[in-house]
Amino acid sequence: MRAVDLIRTKRDGGRLERAAIEWFVAGVTDGSIPDYQAAALLMAVVIRGMSAEETAALTDAMVRSGVRVEYPGLAGTPVDKHSTGGVGDKTSIILAPLAAACGAFVPMMSGRGLGHTGGTLDKLESIPGFRTGLTLDELRRAVRSVGCALIGQTSDVAPADRRLYALRDVTGTVESIPLITASIMSKKIAEGIDALVLDVKTGSGAFMRHYQDSKALAQSLIAAAEGSGTKVEALITDMDRPLGIAAGNANEVIETIDCLKGRGPADVMEVTRAQAERLLVMSGRFDDASARTALDEALSSGRALEQARKWIAAQGGDVAIVDDYSLLPQPSTTIEVLAPRSGYISHIDTYQAGMFTVDLGAGRKKADDAIDYAAGVMFDRNTGDAVTANEPIARIQLGRSFRDAEDLRARFLSFVQFADAPPATRPLVHEHLR
Amino acid sequence: MRAVDLIRTKRDGGRLERAAIEWFVAGVTDGSIPDYQAAALLMAVVIRGMSAEETAALTDAMVRSGVRVEYPGLAGTPVDKHSTGGVGDKTSIILAPLAAACGAFVPMMSGRGLGHTGGTLDKLESIPGFRTGLTLDELRRAVRSVGCALIGQTSDVAPADRRLYALRDVTGTVESIPLITASIMSKKIAEGIDALVLDVKTGSGAFMRHYQDSKALAQSLIAAAEGSGTKVEALITDMDRPLGIAAGNANEVIETIDCLKGRGPADVMEVTRAQAERLLVMSGRFDDASARTALDEALSSGRALEQARKWIAAQGGDVAIVDDYSLLPQPSTTIEVLAPRSGYISHIDTYQAGMFTVDLGAGRKKADDAIDYAAGVMFDRNTGDAVTANEPIARIQLGRSFRDAEDLRARFLSFVQFADAPPATRPLVHEHLR
Repeated sequence: MRAVDLIRTKRDGGRLERAAIEWFVAGVTDGSIPDYQAAALLMAVVIRGMSAEETAALTDAMVRSGVRVEYPGLAGTPVDKHSTGGVGDKTSIILAPLAAACGAFVPMMSGRGLGHTGGTLDKLESIPGFRTGLTLDELRRAVRSVGCALIGQTSDVAPADRRLYALRDVTGTVESIPLITASIMSKKIAEGIDALVLDVKTGSGAFMRHYQDSKALAQSLIAAAEGSGTKVEALITDMDRPLGIAAGNANEVIETIDCLKGRGPADVMEVTRAQAERLLVMSGRFDDASARTALDEALSSGRALEQARKWIAAQGGDVAIVDDYSLLPQPSTTIEVLAPRSGYISHIDTYQAGMFTVDLGAGRKKADDAIDYAAGVMFDRNTGDAVTANEPIARIQLGRSFRDAEDLRARFLSFVQFADAPPATRPLVHEHLR
Repeated sequence: MRAVDLIRTKRDGGRLERAAIEWFVAGVTDGSIPDYQAAALLMAVVIRGMSAEETAALTDAMVRSGVRVEYPGLAGTPVDKHSTGGVGDKTSIILAPLAAACGAFVPMMSGRGLGHTGGTLDKLESIPGFRTGLTLDELRRAVRSVGCALIGQTSDVAPADRRLYALRDVTGTVESIPLITASIMSKKIAEGIDALVLDVKTGSGAFMRHYQDSKALAQSLIAAAEGSGTKVEALITDMDRPLGIAAGNANEVIETIDCLKGRGPADVMEVTRAQAERLLVMSGRFDDASARTALDEALSSGRALEQARKWIAAQGGDVAIVDDYSLLPQPSTTIEVLAPRSGYISHIDTYQAGMFTVDLGAGRKKADDAIDYAAGVMFDRNTGDAVTANEPIARIQLGRSFRDAEDLRARFLSFVQFADAPPATRPLVHEHLR
C-alpha cells in the first residue's frame, strides 16, 4: 500500500477501504507515514468527507492504535459522559458522584480547556491537592472502591489520535465531522466503558453553532460507536447562553457543590439530571422512571454529596472545601456589572463570553499558560431574565492580575444584548438521540 | 501572517491575497513553513483551485524565490520552448540548432524523463562526452558564441518550485492546473528568456489526455506569464501516437540528425517547424512567411546541421556521431514485431507505449536508476498506417539487459489496435493560442 494512492483516492472523492484506513492509522502511530502525507490526506478528508463506514473504520483503527482499558471484576458496568464543550459546562463534576451514588461505576476521562471552553481537569485542579494524573491502575482502584474517578487522557489510549490531533490543529483540518467523530469516539471506546452519554452542545457558545451541524455530529458519533460494544446515546443541549451562573474554575467547583447540596441553578441540574438518567438507564439497572426516582433520592438524602467527599478525598483533594468554600482560590477583586437599561437580556454571545473568561486567566491562550483558578465570571442574570436599570447583573472576578474595571464592564456589555420583550425560549435539552 | 489561516481560507474555497502567497512561497523557500502545512495548502489548492490572479501571484513569487538569469549584451532576444512531455518528443534537439541557424539565441533549460515520457537531457547524454551540467556562465558564453545551448535546471532558478515539486510528488498534489502552471512558468520566466513557445500535448500519451484540459493548461500558462515581460504562445500538439519513429535516447538523437539532414519523419518536422516559426516571429525579426522561408533555407543549405555540429562540440559532445551513428550506444539485440493481421493501425495507447519504453531501460522507474541509452522502440508503422499481415511494424531495441522476445512482442501488441478501416485523422498541431 502507498500513502499517495490513499491520498489521491480521497482527493478525487473516493472511498477508502477499511484495510487502507487501518494501514494509514498504523503508519501514523509508528511514524512511518510522514506528517506531510498525513496532512494532505486530512485536508482531502475535510473537503471530501467520509462515509459512516469510513468513519467507523477510522475510529476502530484509532482505538486499536493503543490499549483498550478493562475493568475486570467490577460489580457493574463502567459508564462515562462526553461533552463537546461549552461555557459554564460543569456537569461532569456533579454527574460523576451523583451517578456513582446510584450504584453506577464512572471512570471519567476528561480534557482541559480548549479555545473558549472550560475544561473539567482544570476546574478540579482548583481544589487544593486534587490529582488528575492517576495511572490506569489507580483509576481502576478508585472506581472499584469509590465508584467514580476522573483523569486526563493517558498516553497509551488512542495514541494515533494524539498525533493526528496535533497535526490537525496546525493544518486547518479541525473542522470535520468524521475527524471529530473518530477523535472523540476512539478515546471513549478505548476507555473500556460499556455505555456513554454524549452531550452535544448547540448555539453561540458551542463548537457546532448550528443545530443541523450539532445533530449531524451527534448522529455521526452514535454511528461510529456501532459494533464497538459501547452503548451510546446523545443529548443535544443548549449552549446559546452560559450554563448556570459561574464560568471559571474555583467558582464552578463551588456551584457543583451547591448543586449536590440541592441549591444549585435549575439549568445546571436539568442538564445534569438528563445525562445521569441516561447513564443509569444504559447501565441496565433502571428504567426512565426508576432512574429519576433514584436521582431524587441520592440528592435529597445527601448521599450524592457524601459520594463527592469520598471522591475528592480519593484523588488527594482537600475535602474541607465542601463545607468551606474559602479554602478554594479566592478572587482578589470582584467587579459588578450593572444593567445599562431595564428590560430583558435577549442574548449572550456565549463564544465571546467564553473568550472573555479565558482572557481573565480562567483558560489558556497558549498551551503552556498557567490557569488563574480564582478568575472568572458570575452570570447572576442570564438570557431571558428581566433586569432593572442599574441593578447588578454579573460579577467579574479577578485573580492574580489587575484589570481596569471600566474596560472590563464595557467588554462584558459588548456581548450581552437587551430588549423590551423576553426572547423566545430555547429548551435546555433539545433532542435525545440513540 | 499564520500558515493555518491561509490553509483555512483556501480549504473553504476562498482566494489568497498576493501578499499571503508571497509570504507562503518565501516560507517554503527558507524552510520556515513546515512540509505538513505546505502539503495541507497544496491539497486545498488541488481541490478548490486558484484564480488566474492567484496563479500569476504564485508564479511570480516562485520566480523571485531564486535568481532571474540575464543575458546582457546579447545581440538578439533569448528564446526557448517548453513541452509538457510525450513519447518520441525529440523536437528540442532539432529546434535549438534550427532556430539558432536563423539568427535566434536559444538558451534552453530542459528536463529528464518523467513517468512515461522521455527527457531531452537524457537523450543528449547518449552522445559520448556531451555535458548538460553547464554553469549559468558557461550557458551564457555558449549562447553568445554558438547561438544555442541546452542545460538542466540549476539550483538557483526557482528553488521554491523544487521543494514544492518534491512535496507534490509524494502527497498526491501533482494534478492541478494552477500548480503545474506556476511550476512550469516560474522556471521559464526565471531563465531570463524574452519569448517562449509552449508545446502542450494532448491525447493518450500526454499528461493532459483530454483536449479541454490541454487547452485549459495552455490558457493558464499564457495568463501566468502576463506582466512578466516574457512573450508566450502555445501550440496544442498531438500526443495520441508516438511522435516520429524512434522512442528512446540514442535512437532519438539519430532521428534528430536525420531531420537536420532533411530526411526525418514528416510528423517530427511539422511539429518542430511550427514551434520554430513561432520562436522566430516572437524574436521580432520575422513575420510568419519570412520565418518559414528562413527555416526552409537553413535546412536545405545545411546550415542547421552545421549549427548542430557547433553546438554538440561546444558542450563537449563527439561531433563525429553526426556522420557515423555507430559511435552512439548500439542495441545488443533488435526484435522485430510483425503485424498480426492486415488492415490499419487504428490506435496506439501512447501512455503504455511510453511505459514500455521506460521498462526497456530508456527511462527511470526510480530516481536513481541508470538510463540504458541504447534501449528503445522504433515505431516503423504508426497510427493510421496500412499494414499487411506478418510485415514488420516495429523494432524493439534491447541494450544491456536480455528480455524474452515473445513476451516483449505480446506486450507491444497489447497497446496497439488494428482495424479494417483507417482511423479518423487527427491534426498534428491542433491549435495555436497566444
